[in-house]
Amino acid sequence: MATEQQEEEHLNQEIQQVEAWKTLNEAVDAGDMEAAHDILEEATSDDKRRMISLLDAEHRDALCALLPVDEAAELIESLADAQAVKMLEEMPAERAADVLEELGPDASGDLLRDLDDDSSEAILAEFDNTQESDDLRERVSYAWDSAGGLMSDRVVSFRENTTVAQVLTELGEHAEDYSDNEVQYFYVVDKNKILKGVLALRNLVLGRRTRAIGELMIKDPASVPVDMALEDLHDVFEKKNYLAFPVVDADGRLRGIVTRDAMQEALSDTQTDSYLKSSGIVGGEELRSMPLKERCMRRLAWLGPNILLNLLAASIIASYEDTLQAVIALAVFLPMVSDMSGCSGNQAVAVSIRELTLGIIQPRDYLRVLKKEIWLGLNNGIVLGVVLGTLAAVWKSNIYLGLVVGGALMLNTILSVSIGGIVPLILKKFKVDPALASGPILTTCTDMSGFFLVLSLASAAMKHL
Amino acid sequence: MATEQQEEEHLNQEIQQVEAWKTLNEAVDAGDMEAAHDILEEATSDDKRRMISLLDAEHRDALCALLPVDEAAELIESLADAQAVKMLEEMPAERAADVLEELGPDASGDLLRDLDDDSSEAILAEFDNTQESDDLRERVSYAWDSAGGLMSDRVVSFRENTTVAQVLTELGEHAEDYSDNEVQYFYVVDKNKILKGVLALRNLVLGRRTRAIGELMIKDPASVPVDMALEDLHDVFEKKNYLAFPVVDADGRLRGIVTRDAMQEALSDTQTDSYLKSSGIVGGEELRSMPLKERCMRRLAWLGPNILLNLLAASIIASYEDTLQAVIALAVFLPMVSDMSGCSGNQAVAVSIRELTLGIIQPRDYLRVLKKEIWLGLNNGIVLGVVLGTLAAVWKSNIYLGLVVGGALMLNTILSVSIGGIVPLILKKFKVDPALASGPILTTCTDMSGFFLVLSLASAAMKHL
Repeated sequence: MATEQQEEEHLNQEIQQVEAWKTLNEAVDAGDMEAAHDILEEATSDDKRRMISLLDAEHRDALCALLPVDEAAELIESLADAQAVKMLEEMPAERAADVLEELGPDASGDLLRDLDDDSSEAILAEFDNTQESDDLRERVSYAWDSAGGLMSDRVVSFRENTTVAQVLTELGEHAEDYSDNEVQYFYVVDKNKILKGVLALRNLVLGRRTRAIGELMIKDPASVPVDMALEDLHDVFEKKNYLAFPVVDADGRLRGIVTRDAMQEALSDTQTDSYLKSSGIVGGEELRSMPLKERCMRRLAWLGPNILLNLLAASIIASYEDTLQAVIALAVFLPMVSDMSGCSGNQAVAVSIRELTLGIIQPRDYLRVLKKEIWLGLNNGIVLGVVLGTLAAVWKSNIYLGLVVGGALMLNTILSVSIGGIVPLILKKFKVDPALASGPILTTCTDMSGFFLVLSLASAAMKHL
Repeated sequence: MATEQQEEEHLNQEIQQVEAWKTLNEAVDAGDMEAAHDILEEATSDDKRRMISLLDAEHRDALCALLPVDEAAELIESLADAQAVKMLEEMPAERAADVLEELGPDASGDLLRDLDDDSSEAILAEFDNTQESDDLRERVSYAWDSAGGLMSDRVVSFRENTTVAQVLTELGEHAEDYSDNEVQYFYVVDKNKILKGVLALRNLVLGRRTRAIGELMIKDPASVPVDMALEDLHDVFEKKNYLAFPVVDADGRLRGIVTRDAMQEALSDTQTDSYLKSSGIVGGEELRSMPLKERCMRRLAWLGPNILLNLLAASIIASYEDTLQAVIALAVFLPMVSDMSGCSGNQAVAVSIRELTLGIIQPRDYLRVLKKEIWLGLNNGIVLGVVLGTLAAVWKSNIYLGLVVGGALMLNTILSVSIGGIVPLILKKFKVDPALASGPILTTCTDMSGFFLVLSLASAAMKHL
């Protein structure tokens, strides 16, 4: 637990941050680049990201325009992807090209992939170095979650006939190029850049200086093709405890290196994406700094279909108006039965999505999932049904009302956990994203069945109610 | 898209897997260790995990008892944590201790932390090596998401006065101990194991053989304390582009090393955890291979409080029974208004949780979030309200019914996105997990306000309905 002193320190920090943000805002207003620069310099990356996000779009663009290219690049890099893409779109294409050239191909590729095709091409056309823009076009053509999309170009390769001494000299002379922590392996290629072998730094430094690295290398090293999907990459890293794999194209040419880190991060992004989608944030990340219109349209895109599904469910109630008119107390229990079943079903959805992710179940295991969920539904349904049924019976002093409400909740719990358990499997089978569609499908089904069960059971027991 | 041939191949694979699983089951039944061993040997880690999960608990325990210790350890390691913990609990403590000694301190620490205290102590008491069990007790005392919980003990350290030649000889003679890819840095400690410096492999091999590494090392290297929290570790890795940091205790003694990889994986686990919690899977991961009773109890633990919240909301309807009796059509719209608002509010919750994770907002930014969400709510509320209101007006040919229903949905959308936007901030402020509690709080609030708005507006407009 935080002590009082820590709290106070924390508060002071917050006040300082707000002050810093205000000063930044004023500096941008006044076009005072130096002051803005100083504030950003002092901030941690999280704070920087926060401050930039809280600026309105105009101030942000103005700030970016004021900074020298290298600092603008640094600023863009510190932002969330969605924000960075937005800023690039607002910039003149020439300036955007300068910033991307500064950022390097890895980061640029990721950003360009998220830009619309026209903006992306306009920016690439402004590149000074056409080799670089061609490489980027190729990178952008790979899916973000494939080996090609995740690879880094920080890969060091030498020709087979290079000697150990030559490699060491090269490393010594260009130490700053290799000072990157990621360089622990050297790849060996032939004159056409075809991957031939791999050599650990260790083995290089321990090797006789006059030998060609082609003799020291491990031949036919494990590699992954540019189009390998994230799922398969995950498998490959699971099977071999390597920190990285070289990425090769269809001809076997070395194109880059994909690290365990990059794979892990992509997996984590996918999981975030699932969470957002399951909450109805679709079509990419939403940040509150985005324009209102875009945020509204995106959220409505998911709410729209939902209103139709809701209508479908509500139509059940409409068809039982007479029953409802006769026993108005039922109206109190309709939303409760559908809500509670929805909650139970969502638990089953989450477990199925989790087990699919872990590779513990596959779509064809639906019978097993169904069996497991029906038993659980029977148990939990009885518990919840007895609780709600008792409450209903006591409230209106009518045991039949209790039986109707409790029975409906029990049956609907069994139904909803069964549906919740298998819907993700069915969606996966038909290659629809389970995180996106399971929730709305489940809710509609359990709403409909819940309303139907309460009202039809009530109709049947009408003379006792 | 998959071609027909790929589909067929895929199907064949699936059939083979089912066959393999059946054979495994039979082999365990017959106590035929060798056959079981062969099947597991051939499977990929995902398939192995799947097959083991699909075995029932008895078969699984029998299989583990049949295997030699090293294979049992490998099997345990391939399982999801929750399953592995379960298996350890079922084993005799002595066997569990052997398996854990085989697994090594990193993996063992993680598993022991999840065991209950009694089982954990019983197993530790069976360790042959008391130094090892003492170390493990210490490891288990660190939170799983702190530097101490995430650290690996695969750290190589030497005393300051060791010469480069001595280090190289040691490395050469015990190459197999250092063949791990993770060893790229050597840490330098004094006689009390206090961390003094760090030395890159590169600098070691390039150093004069007679020099003491204390002279070559970088002094006072960046390190993290054992109790540093995951959030802060993330910050530290953001600020410095290192692959790993040494972990030191309160006295400055080197205890282990925490890698970027381990930090990333823990973050990803936290995100998974948030997703599961937000869907009502609380108290740890649920797998369908767990006992039915445990799964039921865990799910009910979350459904129980929910039924109370639902009652609270439904009590609003109960207090307006007269209104409902007079205009029974309202019963059709009650669940629709509350459902749709719930969906809108959940979108706002997801965006807030995401922005909190990204560090773009902090609890004190609630006014900004509120402002942003109110505008969005007004927009989306008008769109959704007009749609639903029109449908209601047309259905019953009553414009006032349309105004009541549409107006209620509009107002409730504004309310729900506002509540959804700030509830995660408030929970975070009071150190409650936003992923866990935001959903139920939001749903209860929007249900209550939705029911209230529809019914009170209807009461007010009663003579026209």
